[in-house]
Amino acid sequence: MPQPDAISGLLAEVQSRFAATPDPRLRQILLALVRHLYQLATELHLTDLELERGIKFLTAVGQRCTPDRQEFMLLSDVLGFSSAVDVASDHDSLATPGTVLGPFHVANAPTRAFGASLIDTDDGGQRLRVRGVVRSVDGTPIPEASIDVWSCASNGLYPAQDPGQAPGNQRGLLTTDAQGRYEFVLLRPRNYSIPMDGPVGCLMEATARSLMRAAHVHLIVTAPGHYGVTTHLFDQTCPYLASDSVFSVRDALVRTFEPGRNGELEVTFDVALARCERATTEESGNDRTQASTR
Amino acid sequence: MPQPDAISGLLAEVQSRFAATPDPRLRQILLALVRHLYQLATELHLTDLELERGIKFLTAVGQRCTPDRQEFMLLSDVLGFSSAVDVASDHDSLATPGTVLGPFHVANAPTRAFGASLIDTDDGGQRLRVRGVVRSVDGTPIPEASIDVWSCASNGLYPAQDPGQAPGNQRGLLTTDAQGRYEFVLLRPRNYSIPMDGPVGCLMEATARSLMRAAHVHLIVTAPGHYGVTTHLFDQTCPYLASDSVFSVRDALVRTFEPGRNGELEVTFDVALARCERATTEESGNDRTQASTR
Repeated sequence: MPQPDAISGLLAEVQSRFAATPDPRLRQILLALVRHLYQLATELHLTDLELERGIKFLTAVGQRCTPDRQEFMLLSDVLGFSSAVDVASDHDSLATPGTVLGPFHVANAPTRAFGASLIDTDDGGQRLRVRGVVRSVDGTPIPEASIDVWSCASNGLYPAQDPGQAPGNQRGLLTTDAQGRYEFVLLRPRNYSIPMDGPVGCLMEATARSLMRAAHVHLIVTAPGHYGVTTHLFDQTCPYLASDSVFSVRDALVRTFEPGRNGELEVTFDVALARCERATTEESGNDRTQASTR
Repeated sequence: MPQPDAISGLLAEVQSRFAATPDPRLRQILLALVRHLYQLATELHLTDLELERGIKFLTAVGQRCTPDRQEFMLLSDVLGFSSAVDVASDHDSLATPGTVLGPFHVANAPTRAFGASLIDTDDGGQRLRVRGVVRSVDGTPIPEASIDVWSCASNGLYPAQDPGQAPGNQRGLLTTDAQGRYEFVLLRPRNYSIPMDGPVGCLMEATARSLMRAAHVHLIVTAPGHYGVTTHLFDQTCPYLASDSVFSVRDALVRTFEPGRNGELEVTFDVALARCERATTEESGNDRTQASTR
């Protein structure tokens, strides 16, 4: 049986070794992390066989990552950790809420003009025109805000998963105009299964969980002087809104797609960004104004 | 600012999704894990930039692993998590205490006869003869117990780190005789730095921690009907006993090396194993009687 004194003595020793960490935030994070790890080991009476299995699993997750696929982010997503971070780091209840980044964001999307199509590989799916205004939470439109968009094709796959798509398909970097407006056209997003062919897929199977993600378009919206937001636009008709496998659906992000011109669907998705008083350095924490240049 | 209701609602939702996990132990572990992850995100107000940095770090740890090097186990070790699991899973205060497995255990060590040398590459270092008896906690000697030994060469490196050593150097699989005795000779263990050339090395540098490990010989001792033990034999003269970088030193494992015959040093290291009443299946948790066949 474990000795409570031995455990608490060990935790105190480990924490004392991290006490000289020069960066105060790193120190704070590590002290909290080791405390929770200790509680986990103690509460569960974890065995060394279980530790080894956990290590093997995490190793496999790391080794499944490629420049186009972030299996560790996917793990964080299906555990709800990414969403917990999103909720815990909300800056302003008036701002557009954040959701998970997901495993398929790829930097350096093609630059797209106002109103342009992101469809580089037309698979015959229905077209959706997305338009909106990016504003500060006080209502002031933000010109030259940056919008990084990515979404799956009609087969539910991203270009990195599907050699049949051009690498820039359903992806684009846009900039708001002088009135803070943006607009683009893409194939209507589809619900899809998260990747099953990796360790996270094994975990989902072992826990008998649904792999389905609710249909969505990904957006990262950033602007100087504001906290950026990584978010989704959801389709109100999608049957998986209540069971999204990465816990990313938030009511304020669900929209109805309306019939538009030329057989297109249309949707309006305005974005409100919280003001960031501090300089937009990395130290401002959640600041994503630098996301596109990282 | 985060909304407490939104956070607790999200946690409840995530836990409900794991409720159908068929394996009860996996379910128990995952429910505790997601609870601690939520507490961590909430207490620290983790930002998504910090989440991404953490994900990048863990990905690098996974990608640094090879068949000969377990960087994730090293991470668990330097965080004190491996030691917490060791202490939390102790079965019997009369048994030899366990310590970390470490990143350098390689399966299928060469079989060695009673009293044989493990030195396949003689670097001129001092020789140490290790002998002992493996017993049940009630004192009964255990014949045919299995002992898997590995230790660094005089340069502080394991064969997997050092092309100058034969692959089996300082490694051996031994079996106790009819009286439960074992004996082998190897090069005296040295203190050494854990690997600095990976993500864990970066973490140690960022936290200004010492990388030194106290001089030790690794042993995994297993026997039918008993809980196995993964442990170390430490050199009482080592200056790093109090600051071992993976928190593995336990008083009961420290020994004085005495002068022996032919210029050898000698040490006695008896091992006591807790009895395992249940069948020695994987379900018995900490049971390492199957370690050598995994």
